[in-house]
Amino acid sequence: MKDLQQITVIGLGLLGGSITLAVKNRLAGVKVAGYTHREATRQKARKLKVAHHVFDDMGPAVADADLVILATPVCTFENIFCEISKTLRTGCIVTDVGSTKVLAHRWAAKYLPHTVRYTGSHPIAGSEKRGIEFATADLFEDSLCILTCKAGNDKSARILSKFWSSLGCNVQFLSPARHDKILASVSHLPHAVAASLINSNTSNTLKFAGKGFTDTTRVASGPANIWADILITNAENVTKSIDTIIAELTKLKQAVQSGQKKQIFNILEKARNKRADIIDEQSNKGK
Amino acid sequence: MKDLQQITVIGLGLLGGSITLAVKNRLAGVKVAGYTHREATRQKARKLKVAHHVFDDMGPAVADADLVILATPVCTFENIFCEISKTLRTGCIVTDVGSTKVLAHRWAAKYLPHTVRYTGSHPIAGSEKRGIEFATADLFEDSLCILTCKAGNDKSARILSKFWSSLGCNVQFLSPARHDKILASVSHLPHAVAASLINSNTSNTLKFAGKGFTDTTRVASGPANIWADILITNAENVTKSIDTIIAELTKLKQAVQSGQKKQIFNILEKARNKRADIIDEQSNKGK
Repeated sequence: MKDLQQITVIGLGLLGGSITLAVKNRLAGVKVAGYTHREATRQKARKLKVAHHVFDDMGPAVADADLVILATPVCTFENIFCEISKTLRTGCIVTDVGSTKVLAHRWAAKYLPHTVRYTGSHPIAGSEKRGIEFATADLFEDSLCILTCKAGNDKSARILSKFWSSLGCNVQFLSPARHDKILASVSHLPHAVAASLINSNTSNTLKFAGKGFTDTTRVASGPANIWADILITNAENVTKSIDTIIAELTKLKQAVQSGQKKQIFNILEKARNKRADIIDEQSNKGK
Repeated sequence: MKDLQQITVIGLGLLGGSITLAVKNRLAGVKVAGYTHREATRQKARKLKVAHHVFDDMGPAVADADLVILATPVCTFENIFCEISKTLRTGCIVTDVGSTKVLAHRWAAKYLPHTVRYTGSHPIAGSEKRGIEFATADLFEDSLCILTCKAGNDKSARILSKFWSSLGCNVQFLSPARHDKILASVSHLPHAVAASLINSNTSNTLKFAGKGFTDTTRVASGPANIWADILITNAENVTKSIDTIIAELTKLKQAVQSGQKKQIFNILEKARNKRADIIDEQSNKGK
């Protein structure tokens, strides 16, 4: 990609490491650098050769970058924007792969210089695993990547879109506010629900957990610090989503309590049909 | 198995068909018969050769059986017990594979003759798929099978335990009441939650559903009629479980709303650790 000579990824966990690996594998001629604040992770990153260069300090890591990608927990963005703001070269594109976007945009506007362009990225990829040892170059293959811009589709957003496409993503644009609202329902709520489902059980009842239970709760094995950041940086939408599911659960409970079998059936069948539509849509996309 | 010359399965869906197939594959010398009220399913069952004999009528199907297994939705048990009660041979063992047990025991006590013995079975196996075409002989391999007896561990329960073990299950005994209470938390609640999670989303937000969402809601693709029966026949426990998760969700919501990051982290980390314990336990069992 001629617009991107060097890409720097800050944070070398599952996502960050997968980005650097994907760039190494797919974007010939692009130099990819990585930085992480943990010495142990830097050592692993060097051993696993996830990037061309792993820096010990953030300043030198981003100084020559045409694209800087933050792949750290959302709540770290504020400090990182602040820290790198003086070092970024003119024209640098800054993005992040955080799961909430309104605050990221607010912090970018506050701390990043006008000489750089910020667009948010949210590749909907990953797993409940954490750590660079689980990073893979094909993590983004066929994933949706949502890009968030406040001021429409500018040149840097187009370059970023091309970048994610080259990593295998299907790119879609949303406003930061709309992104956060949608993701609250479709991603943050499932996490809240999975954790609450586990915490509703005792170690005694959990002995009888089957595959249904472990699948339903898989996402709850994701890193608690990252998810605490996500929920807290999308508090208003997450609160509304939890209220919505409590209303749905209450409706189902009332039908169960009053023995309205037809009503229970209708609720379950509606969910079943809606899920069938998602699966159909996903398999059509895969074709 | 010398105590079982003929086994008859009533209901030839995913579970029933998998039982007949498993018996055919694993219990040499045991005759296995099947019955289902749908002509189309009987034709499929014959074509797929899931049993040695597929009957058109329930009476003849159970007349010579040493073990009769109901693999139909829970709410059908009452009528079936009533219908077969006069035809069962003395000493016949009757069981079912339903997901709730208190009512099944009540109906068995009411309708089955004293010349037969009823014990409940709940093999925790299956999938969200339905229909005989998904039946497999190894569905029960390494699954837990809970047996429910009111009057302790009698001879017929021991034979039944041996039967499920021979199909690959790990057998455990519980009272019907305890079974229903535990399963409400660990199985019926996940279903209620998965359906409610889907119904909390609009077709618009569902376009952004990733793997996390589809995994969290997989169980909601299970047959709505079977699950309506399960929830309604365990109404009191299911109601309590829904109340419990609403309390957990409310706790998390309050922490999110008031920006208590440490509290959110603690809730998520507790769930994460509890889930890690289940996974550890399951992989130890698999060894």
